[in-house]
Amino acid sequence: MPDKKHTLRLKRLGIDTYKEAVIYMHTDCHICRSEGFEAQARIQITLGDNSIMATLNTVDTDLLDVEEASLSNYAWELLKAHERDIITLSHPKLLGSVAYIRSKIYGNALKKDEMAAVIKDVTTGYLSDVHIATFLTACAGGRLDKQEILYLTEAMLQVGDTLTWNSPIVVDKHSIGGLPGNRTSLIIVPIVTAFGLTMPKTSSRAITSPAGTADTMEVFAPVELDIAAMRKVVEAENGCIVWGGLSLSPADDIIIRIERAMDIDSEGQVVASILSKKIASGSTHIVLDIPIGPTAKVRTPQMAQMLKNGFESVCQEFGIKLHISFSNGLQPIGRGIGPALEAKDILAVLRCEKNAPQDLRDKSLTLAGQVLEFSPRVLPGTGKQLATTLLDSGQAWKKFQAICQAQGGMFEPPTAFHQHVVTASISGHVRSIDNRRLARVAKLAGAPRSKAAGVELLTPLGSIIEKDQPLFIIHAETAGELRYTVDYFEQEHTIIQLEP
Amino acid sequence: MPDKKHTLRLKRLGIDTYKEAVIYMHTDCHICRSEGFEAQARIQITLGDNSIMATLNTVDTDLLDVEEASLSNYAWELLKAHERDIITLSHPKLLGSVAYIRSKIYGNALKKDEMAAVIKDVTTGYLSDVHIATFLTACAGGRLDKQEILYLTEAMLQVGDTLTWNSPIVVDKHSIGGLPGNRTSLIIVPIVTAFGLTMPKTSSRAITSPAGTADTMEVFAPVELDIAAMRKVVEAENGCIVWGGLSLSPADDIIIRIERAMDIDSEGQVVASILSKKIASGSTHIVLDIPIGPTAKVRTPQMAQMLKNGFESVCQEFGIKLHISFSNGLQPIGRGIGPALEAKDILAVLRCEKNAPQDLRDKSLTLAGQVLEFSPRVLPGTGKQLATTLLDSGQAWKKFQAICQAQGGMFEPPTAFHQHVVTASISGHVRSIDNRRLARVAKLAGAPRSKAAGVELLTPLGSIIEKDQPLFIIHAETAGELRYTVDYFEQEHTIIQLEP
Repeated sequence: MPDKKHTLRLKRLGIDTYKEAVIYMHTDCHICRSEGFEAQARIQITLGDNSIMATLNTVDTDLLDVEEASLSNYAWELLKAHERDIITLSHPKLLGSVAYIRSKIYGNALKKDEMAAVIKDVTTGYLSDVHIATFLTACAGGRLDKQEILYLTEAMLQVGDTLTWNSPIVVDKHSIGGLPGNRTSLIIVPIVTAFGLTMPKTSSRAITSPAGTADTMEVFAPVELDIAAMRKVVEAENGCIVWGGLSLSPADDIIIRIERAMDIDSEGQVVASILSKKIASGSTHIVLDIPIGPTAKVRTPQMAQMLKNGFESVCQEFGIKLHISFSNGLQPIGRGIGPALEAKDILAVLRCEKNAPQDLRDKSLTLAGQVLEFSPRVLPGTGKQLATTLLDSGQAWKKFQAICQAQGGMFEPPTAFHQHVVTASISGHVRSIDNRRLARVAKLAGAPRSKAAGVELLTPLGSIIEKDQPLFIIHAETAGELRYTVDYFEQEHTIIQLEP
Repeated sequence: MPDKKHTLRLKRLGIDTYKEAVIYMHTDCHICRSEGFEAQARIQITLGDNSIMATLNTVDTDLLDVEEASLSNYAWELLKAHERDIITLSHPKLLGSVAYIRSKIYGNALKKDEMAAVIKDVTTGYLSDVHIATFLTACAGGRLDKQEILYLTEAMLQVGDTLTWNSPIVVDKHSIGGLPGNRTSLIIVPIVTAFGLTMPKTSSRAITSPAGTADTMEVFAPVELDIAAMRKVVEAENGCIVWGGLSLSPADDIIIRIERAMDIDSEGQVVASILSKKIASGSTHIVLDIPIGPTAKVRTPQMAQMLKNGFESVCQEFGIKLHISFSNGLQPIGRGIGPALEAKDILAVLRCEKNAPQDLRDKSLTLAGQVLEFSPRVLPGTGKQLATTLLDSGQAWKKFQAICQAQGGMFEPPTAFHQHVVTASISGHVRSIDNRRLARVAKLAGAPRSKAAGVELLTPLGSIIEKDQPLFIIHAETAGELRYTVDYFEQEHTIIQLEP
């Protein structure tokens, strides 16, 4: 359909819209006129072999002349564009996926090919942010059935690459988010790989939390490895801890961006997101940790059971061995909340320092033990003891350093420039901790974007403290963010409840 | 919280993002650095007495220097900005409304103050497009209960202006959309006001259809009147037909923009949207037409009943007299689909021309009769006869011209430059017409943006036609849109079903 008359010359304006593709054209451009395009129209743009969809912004000043167009930096990269390249414009094709999303809103279950069409259009950028938000909302609140979760997992797998390994057992471990500081993977991977199991761990960045495993690992070493580089690390060290968003699950990367703006996850999508990445990374045996607590992501045993059913049913279809363990989600794990603060806790555990957070150490050993028991060489019931030996002997710490070096590291965790100590207004013992609000404080302080930002929790549940004694310390990299966070906290006195 | 150090100088770049507020700042700007702002952050901007929220786009070229910022044209207008004005920037306050939207996704009913908070943040622009799409999706598919629809109506009323009239009876009429060409209001208003009833009709633009009443009226006369101008028209002529989005229901205007991008309506929101505008415009007596048909917006009698219950329950709370009539929604009304083509049908009816579409005439007279019977001067059962007399005597046509003149008109409907005739591939009679696909053809051709664009339907249900005889004519203002529409139609042979 595009013909020669529908071309424009590119001029770089350098506008960063984050991951939204935008095209800028002059209001008086002949294509706007002949095609009836106006601001907010969706336009298909082709340059060489690449084609994307972008949202039109028009310009009525001399930033552009009528023969020129510009692209947001994201669109510029997607098209691999250069100054003065000639792009071709056309009307977008009609998207069947929009009709499927509408059907989902009205309570209809999506079929396999419908789910695949939606995820394909998410991945290629054919669906706008508003459409993706609509799709995710329509799926949230328990509105995906077992079959749909399977279809969604398959659809997310289809649009990404898949890894295979020369090993009959490829292990993995995942914790459902929502519990600040629950960063056990960085301890489990070195324990398990020191034993000799293969654990090519791909992890995500934070969605609505102050840090994801990838954010925390990035404090120590680069995590944005391509597949060839990741394979090299695993061949050398049996395992790695990398960001899984690059090409294993491109749909998930986009979905996470929209969910961050919406500030929600949907449980069916959580199952599909997690398992599509695990399956794509070649895992055959998975330990899944689901923390339960009133302010964790999973609030009730019923919700945990619902997720468990979803995970088990998809794993069964794919022939994957799954061990699910429910854990205590009443308070954060460790002391630090935020990438660098969590990294410091992990260092203390790996180095077997005396002041290492015991809860983080114990939980990591329990889960590492469950992973080790997937090995035919490990007797049932002996995994945790074995994990403890691997940690206390220094083998895990040595392995962690080797993995970081292989990924391009290893760095020391930074310390934030600005700190603010929050003290108790009365004496008493700590009766409850609001994970969500504490996480929000860490996010306001700049985590995970600012690596050193976050919260250092000094008083776990049951602590007995005096009036004016410190409860937690807010860390921020900029004065503006610290001031803003303190302002918020001063309106929120219920984050840590004290009982006199 | 904002202090002197958080100010930038405005430079106009003239970028039109439609109705999205965007702020452009240099990547190296000191505020980006000290406050930790990066692309896609939401920022509060203050200029004089005006304050808005905008999404940040950063610029890494010399479009802006580090002391400068620019705004999208929409944000520029909202802030009433001038070149070199000094704006103040700050972090946005945390929005409780986001938590309420999340709660709604998980199936909780919203309370009165929660709904009010959401709608207030929609109206002030504090919620982003993605948040609003999430809210609308969470409310769609029957997920608002009776009480929530009432709260939503009240919330939408609260954020807008309300009109009062010196008349004990203020009538109104509304048709649920989805039926192409169902443009009876432009005939009913002149009939009813010629009789002497007060009918200050506010109407909407198209949401997902090829034309709304406001779009069609705009073919004849200006519709974007402010309240003072509207009042003048009603005082002179007893009635008007204006666009109701200006200040009567500012929330609805924003919601419609997002729904257009999503291509959905939600039924609870339909009730709240319609009634908030009717109540805000001072209506005391309302006739509501609900067309039912498999490809109309309301597909089943059950759905119609659900909407009826919603309307009746809200009207009862507000003490409004309501007459609901269900009508046949199997095919378009009249011949034209699209603003100017519908306007031509209306002219033919008002001028009592022989070739006027009889279905449009008859439906308008029926509904006008129901409105007239609200008057104590009209006996039950005599309304339609009275309406017919007012139309056939030329009084309605005279009144329509007077209303158009009072609003600043009156113009002749334009004719599209490009036309394409679609013919029958077999002989037979017309068994069914797909309203939705026909509407889509009209939209692809450019309606309602291009006034003259749309579809002229030549063969209503039951028509007996020969092979190669014209079925309908596609009208477009640009060659690109016509070509695109014809391409679409050639893949869609089922819009008009013929039975041999």
